[in-house]
Amino acid sequence: MKIIVPATSANLGPGFDALGLSLKLYNEIEITPQSFTCISIKGEGSKKNSIKKNNSFVNIFNEIYLSLVGKTDDFKFSFTNNIPFSRGLGSSSSVVIGAIAAAYEMAGFKVDRNTILNKAVFYENHPDNIAPATFGGFTSSIIENSKVYTQKANLSDDIKAVVVIPDKAMSTNDSRNKLPKHYSMKDTVSNLAHAAFLTSCFIKQDYDSLRIASKDMMHENLRMQSLPELFDVRNIAYKNGALMSTLSGSGSTFLNIAYKKDAPNLQKQLAENFKDFRVEILDFDNDGFKIISKS
Amino acid sequence: MKIIVPATSANLGPGFDALGLSLKLYNEIEITPQSFTCISIKGEGSKKNSIKKNNSFVNIFNEIYLSLVGKTDDFKFSFTNNIPFSRGLGSSSSVVIGAIAAAYEMAGFKVDRNTILNKAVFYENHPDNIAPATFGGFTSSIIENSKVYTQKANLSDDIKAVVVIPDKAMSTNDSRNKLPKHYSMKDTVSNLAHAAFLTSCFIKQDYDSLRIASKDMMHENLRMQSLPELFDVRNIAYKNGALMSTLSGSGSTFLNIAYKKDAPNLQKQLAENFKDFRVEILDFDNDGFKIISKS
Repeated sequence: MKIIVPATSANLGPGFDALGLSLKLYNEIEITPQSFTCISIKGEGSKKNSIKKNNSFVNIFNEIYLSLVGKTDDFKFSFTNNIPFSRGLGSSSSVVIGAIAAAYEMAGFKVDRNTILNKAVFYENHPDNIAPATFGGFTSSIIENSKVYTQKANLSDDIKAVVVIPDKAMSTNDSRNKLPKHYSMKDTVSNLAHAAFLTSCFIKQDYDSLRIASKDMMHENLRMQSLPELFDVRNIAYKNGALMSTLSGSGSTFLNIAYKKDAPNLQKQLAENFKDFRVEILDFDNDGFKIISKS
Repeated sequence: MKIIVPATSANLGPGFDALGLSLKLYNEIEITPQSFTCISIKGEGSKKNSIKKNNSFVNIFNEIYLSLVGKTDDFKFSFTNNIPFSRGLGSSSSVVIGAIAAAYEMAGFKVDRNTILNKAVFYENHPDNIAPATFGGFTSSIIENSKVYTQKANLSDDIKAVVVIPDKAMSTNDSRNKLPKHYSMKDTVSNLAHAAFLTSCFIKQDYDSLRIASKDMMHENLRMQSLPELFDVRNIAYKNGALMSTLSGSGSTFLNIAYKKDAPNLQKQLAENFKDFRVEILDFDNDGFKIISKS
């Protein structure tokens, strides 16, 4: 069987640990029965031997598969990794969602997407990347009594993501440790109001309001301080037609959203100014993971 | 001219100072030219002489009218007040919105609702009641550079409000002083995630999810401690078909939302259990203030 799982961008400014969206940039995993377990990796991670020895995807896949059929089996896992590691584009969520969905498929069990999402939250305890990797589109999620609930809205073809991927990684844990333990009433109200307003903008496809909606007071500027060029990315993006420009997850990638017609120029301007960074136009994904061929 | 302005319910659980909705319970104000200013009040406030002497509506009306026509004029103001005072049902917002909209009308100026809302924020600096009083429906608002931006969604005829109005007032200022100055990361994330998710539920009319969506970690339980019967109101509401049950604004009213078919029984149960409180079924308003006869 072959499965693809999308890259995702979380937080979207004020929606810390809650909001996310899905991008047409996919990791592809092919799994075939084999007499012994083996792994091949193309793309991201292909040069890291540690990933072959202790592979998260294989570990999660085996755990779920065992829980379903009561035994483990051997497979060949062929990874084509297009989502950069540790750049805030949801590569670890794609691993978790892909492994769980693939295990159900290889075990021959029908399963709905909600079940997969709720298995995934044991491996990644924030829903903001696993939810869009599961459902696609824009997602707003909460966790209540260890269960994830997600509301989804499709993203229009009229908008594109222009992602700026720096040459440096930012670790989610390091990045999280920089944040305050408490927030003032004013900042708390600002973020909840903006997160709610932003959700409305995405659902109603009122993209002209994204810029005012996406202001964050909790984390973004603090995290950007470890890679100050990102402040310039945001400034240049806003001068060149970006509808919104926010740190993707905990970084280091910057997510800019622009109307389709403005995306090529925005890409050009950003690429010219940040020659060491990858700048790519991506479509939005409205489907989430997809099994593209059966076992 | 005659104008009606709806009651409103703000916060809706997690949406502190940001979310609100509009109810078909109206204050009605009739204004007619007169040789000297005079005031008549029916309903709420009719027995309070102080309201006649220093009337907020008349003060705001005169300020706006003067700014538009460069002079003051005398009018007779006839109030029929149906929105209870200091109960968390937006009576002061109805005064502000009504006064501004009426002043534009009496001055002969065409004006859009956004302008009225943005005048109102000078008199009431939280948008959560003035926004639904202006536009009706469910509203999600932010303030950026002193300007209010609101997203609106209509509420379905399939749901009703069952409001429980205690016999005691709760002052917004006292109630606000009880709240902490800071919130933990966990509570902040919980409220912003729930406010965003709740917004999606209202826009997509997914009313079955309102209960999990409307959980608050910032203010509700703290405020309810000054009127502990409200905890019983919430428990009984949830046992009798309420889709959500939250403190209305800063209280003391409790807003319960139920499907139309469940509302009569919910009202009956609450009325039987809280004989000193008013329990009323109200429709939702999707229009905001309305000028029902011209000058």
